[in-house]
Amino acid sequence: LEALGRKQIAGKILLFNNRFDQRMAAQGLGGEAYEQAVVFRSRGAIDASYFGAVAVLVRSVGGGGYRLPHTGITAYDPAIPKIPAGAVTAEDADLIAGLAARGKVQARLVLTPQSLPETTSYNVVADLKGTEHPEQVVIVSGHLDSWDLGTGALDDAAGVAMAMAAVELVRRLDLRPRRTIRVVAWMGEECGSPGAWAYAKQHEGELAHHVAAIESDLGAGHPVGFKAKIKDKAMAWLSPVSAILDAQGAGGIRPVDGTEADLTPLAYAGVPAFGLWQDSRTYFNFHHTAADTIDKIVPAELAENAAAMVVMAYALANATEPLLR
Amino acid sequence: LEALGRKQIAGKILLFNNRFDQRMAAQGLGGEAYEQAVVFRSRGAIDASYFGAVAVLVRSVGGGGYRLPHTGITAYDPAIPKIPAGAVTAEDADLIAGLAARGKVQARLVLTPQSLPETTSYNVVADLKGTEHPEQVVIVSGHLDSWDLGTGALDDAAGVAMAMAAVELVRRLDLRPRRTIRVVAWMGEECGSPGAWAYAKQHEGELAHHVAAIESDLGAGHPVGFKAKIKDKAMAWLSPVSAILDAQGAGGIRPVDGTEADLTPLAYAGVPAFGLWQDSRTYFNFHHTAADTIDKIVPAELAENAAAMVVMAYALANATEPLLR
Repeated sequence: LEALGRKQIAGKILLFNNRFDQRMAAQGLGGEAYEQAVVFRSRGAIDASYFGAVAVLVRSVGGGGYRLPHTGITAYDPAIPKIPAGAVTAEDADLIAGLAARGKVQARLVLTPQSLPETTSYNVVADLKGTEHPEQVVIVSGHLDSWDLGTGALDDAAGVAMAMAAVELVRRLDLRPRRTIRVVAWMGEECGSPGAWAYAKQHEGELAHHVAAIESDLGAGHPVGFKAKIKDKAMAWLSPVSAILDAQGAGGIRPVDGTEADLTPLAYAGVPAFGLWQDSRTYFNFHHTAADTIDKIVPAELAENAAAMVVMAYALANATEPLLR
Repeated sequence: LEALGRKQIAGKILLFNNRFDQRMAAQGLGGEAYEQAVVFRSRGAIDASYFGAVAVLVRSVGGGGYRLPHTGITAYDPAIPKIPAGAVTAEDADLIAGLAARGKVQARLVLTPQSLPETTSYNVVADLKGTEHPEQVVIVSGHLDSWDLGTGALDDAAGVAMAMAAVELVRRLDLRPRRTIRVVAWMGEECGSPGAWAYAKQHEGELAHHVAAIESDLGAGHPVGFKAKIKDKAMAWLSPVSAILDAQGAGGIRPVDGTEADLTPLAYAGVPAFGLWQDSRTYFNFHHTAADTIDKIVPAELAENAAAMVVMAYALANATEPLLR
C-alpha cells in the first residue's frame, strides 16, 4: 500500500486478491498458509483506511473454488476510520481483478453483517482426577463456538468431540492416570479467545501445575502428529510417545513458535502446548464457509484424532517425570 | 409417491432427498448418473402436486458438497396445479431429512425465480466448405446459452470453444476436407433446445446429407472418447478413427440410446450423432451452480477435447465413403 501511495488509493474500494497457498497446505503446512493469507482479511481494512480507501474487498482465504465466501475476524483500529470490508469468492476476486485490468470498475456494496452486543458465555470444563497428583493438570481441548456461516463441524466441534472421546477412552480402558486430565471446551476462539484468557486469569496460581495443554483446531483429517510449543530440551521426553503414535501415522512432533489460539494464554505462562497436526489438505476448503457441516467429518479419521490425543494426554498425565518446561 | 399415498402427502412440502451417484460418475457414467437423479428435479413438482403436495424441495443433483444449490429446468403440467419447487444443497437436504426423522418440520419458503417472456435469439453457424461435396455436412457444436447461476464456462462455453478450435485447427493445418465442416453454437439447450429444433426444421430437406453431428456438452475434462448414437453396422467404420484417438487416451466409442439434447432433433432424422465423452468426475460438482466459472477449465484438457473433436470431424468429413447411417 505504501508503494501505491495515498493518491492511488484514496476514495477507492481496494481489492486484496492474494491467494491462499494450496501447495503449502498440501505439504502439511495448512495453518502456516492460512496465517500468510489471513493478514489481508484481519488487517486489510485498517491499512487500506489509513491510506484513504473507502472499503476493502478481500479474496476469500482458503481453497476449494466452489464460489464460496470464506469469512472471519476483521480488525479495526479505533484511531483509524472504520471502513466496510467484505470477503469475495476466489472466482469473483479474479473477475474483478480481470475487469480492473481493462479499466475503471464501479461497485456498489451491500454488506449486511452486524456485531451483536457482548453477552456472558462459558467454557465447559470437566476433570478426570489424577490418582497421585490431582493438582497437576493435562488439558485436552477444542473450542465450542464457531464462525457463523456453517455449523462449525470441522471448526471446531471436531476438537471438542476428540477431547471428550479422549477421556472417555481412558475411562473405558479403566486407566487411572497419576495426574488429572481436564477436558476444556473453550468459548470464544473466533472472537479472540476470551474464554481462554479468562481461564488463564482464573487459574493463574495453578498454571505452574499445568503439565501441558492439548487442543485440536485444524479440522478432523488424519492426524500426522503434534505441533509442539515446548522447550528444545523437552523433545527427548517425547520420543517414546512419538514412537507409539508412529504406528498410526501420527508420530510427527513439529516444534512451532506460536500455538493454537486458545492455548496462547497458557503458553505465555510457560505451559507446554500441543496442537493436533492434521492432514489439512481439504480443511481450508471448508473453513469459515457455509459448507463446514457434519458431512465433512470422516468418522474413522475423527477416531484416529481422538486416539492420537489420548495417547499424548495419557503419556503426559501418567509419566513418572513430567514433561520438562 | 403412490406407496406413500395422497393422505400422507396432501398439504405438505415434499423433500426428494435422492442422491447423485458419484460412484457412477467416477466410472465414466456421469451423464447416466445425472439422468437417474435429475428426474426428481424435472418431474418432481408435477408428481408431488398430483398427490396433493403444496411444494417440493429437491436435493441438488450433483456432487461436490460445498453447500451449493444445483438448479435446472423444472417441468409443469398444464393439467396439474403448479406448485413451488426449490433446490436445496446436499447438506441442507440431509439436515431437513434428519429433522423430519425426529418429528414434524415446518418450513417457510421464499423462492425468487422468475420466467421472463420469450424473446428471439439465434444459433450461430459457420461453414468450412467441403472441396468435393460441399452439400454434405459434418456438424461440430456446443451450446451458447447456460444456466443462470454461474457463467457457464463448463456448460457449455467449453463445447463452443472446442467446435471453433476444431475448425481453426483444420485451417491452420491447411487441410481441405471433402465435405463441409459446420460449426454450430446452439441456442437454448437449457430450455429445451429450441435452437436445435429450429435448425432441424429449417434444414429438413438437407438432413439426408448431414453425414454426422458432434457436440460436446459434458464439460472440459480429459476426453476418453465419444458416445455414439449410430447404427451397429457403422461401428467398424469408426475403428481406424478410434485407433488414432487412442494415442491421446480418447479412443473409446460407446454406443448410446440417447444423445446430447441439441443433437436429438438430428438423430430423430437419422443423422449419426456423437457426444464427446469426457472424464466427468468433477463436472457435476459445478454443473448448474454458481461455481461454473472459467477457472474450472484446465486449458490443456480443453485443448485435448478440441483435438479429439477435430480428429473425429475430419475423419467424417474427408473419408471416401461416408459413415453408414
